[in-house]
Amino acid sequence: MTVRLPGQFPTRCRAVVHNGIVSLVAVAADKAPSMYTQAKAALADVDRTLAEAGSSKDRILTAMVYISDMARKEEFNRAWDEWADRNNPPMRACVEATLTGESMVEIVMTAAV
Amino acid sequence: MTVRLPGQFPTRCRAVVHNGIVSLVAVAADKAPSMYTQAKAALADVDRTLAEAGSSKDRILTAMVYISDMARKEEFNRAWDEWADRNNPPMRACVEATLTGESMVEIVMTAAV
Amino acid sequence: MTVRLPGQFPTRCRAVVHNGIVSLVAVAADKAPSMYTQAKAALADVDRTLAEAGSSKDRILTAMVYISDMARKEEFNRAWDEWADRNNPPMRACVEATLTGESMVEIVMTAAV
Repeated sequence: MTVRLPGQFPTRCRAVVHNGIVSLVAVAADKAPSMYTQAKAALADVDRTLAEAGSSKDRILTAMVYISDMARKEEFNRAWDEWADRNNPPMRACVEATLTGESMVEIVMTAAV
Repeated sequence: MTVRLPGQFPTRCRAVVHNGIVSLVAVAADKAPSMYTQAKAALADVDRTLAEAGSSKDRILTAMVYISDMARKEEFNRAWDEWADRNNPPMRACVEATLTGESMVEIVMTAAV
Repeated sequence: MTVRLPGQFPTRCRAVVHNGIVSLVAVAADKAPSMYTQAKAALADVDRTLAEAGSSKDRILTAMVYISDMARKEEFNRAWDEWADRNNPPMRACVEATLTGESMVEIVMTAAV
């Protein structure tokens, strides 16, 4: 069975749960002009979606992080390091990509539920 | 068991089916200078590969979309919205990335088979 | 059960094994100013991590390749073609993205264990 958590648009969803794995996408709702602030907001969005999907931070498997400016990766990392579960660190990759509108960070994750 | 659908190159394949999940990559074969046209062609390529893998649009789980120009995202979205199954919308993320040659869109997906 | 292979940082790991699938990230440790050299080094890193995870090249399912300069994709492909298992080619996508520091290649993979 597949469970889909609706997002902002009818043709996409925010998260999908299938075979004991949730795949989710998270961004900052408020496009503050700060990588750190957007990162914290996106990671809070991750927490909310994980909870809705029946998962949690300690069960994250992989994280693909897209940031709008590699020169500000340390700002992203500061938010990540404050947030991450050091007993269960996910595989993570982080690259620069131009994102939608004023988004500075977009995170795609998988977690066990 | 793992099934691999051959593509254009001997060292890569177009899709792999394993444990009830197909992972696929799709592009437009014809590199028309239009995001909408390439998006439609890439999504038709998705449909063909899903069918070959024994899956279909309603079982797509995740879509990672790379477009060559974020300023043309709405063109991509138009093709996506015409194509998507609104009863079973996948998790989708879309970022800008420089692609191979004249490609304007590249889609990586997972679907249940 | 989830097994995490530690990397360089306490808040991320290099690979995670869950439900018979390993997800890993690989880069070149030595940031030589050559796409070919970094590609070979990153693929050797892939081999080491696969072995640690109890997998191997012939069981790779998917590869997402980020290179710092699409104009040098053929250099990356040369290293890939020398390395790949032609009997078991993975699904692969390759896009350009700005990477961390002097990195020219970053590879995210999944493989059956």
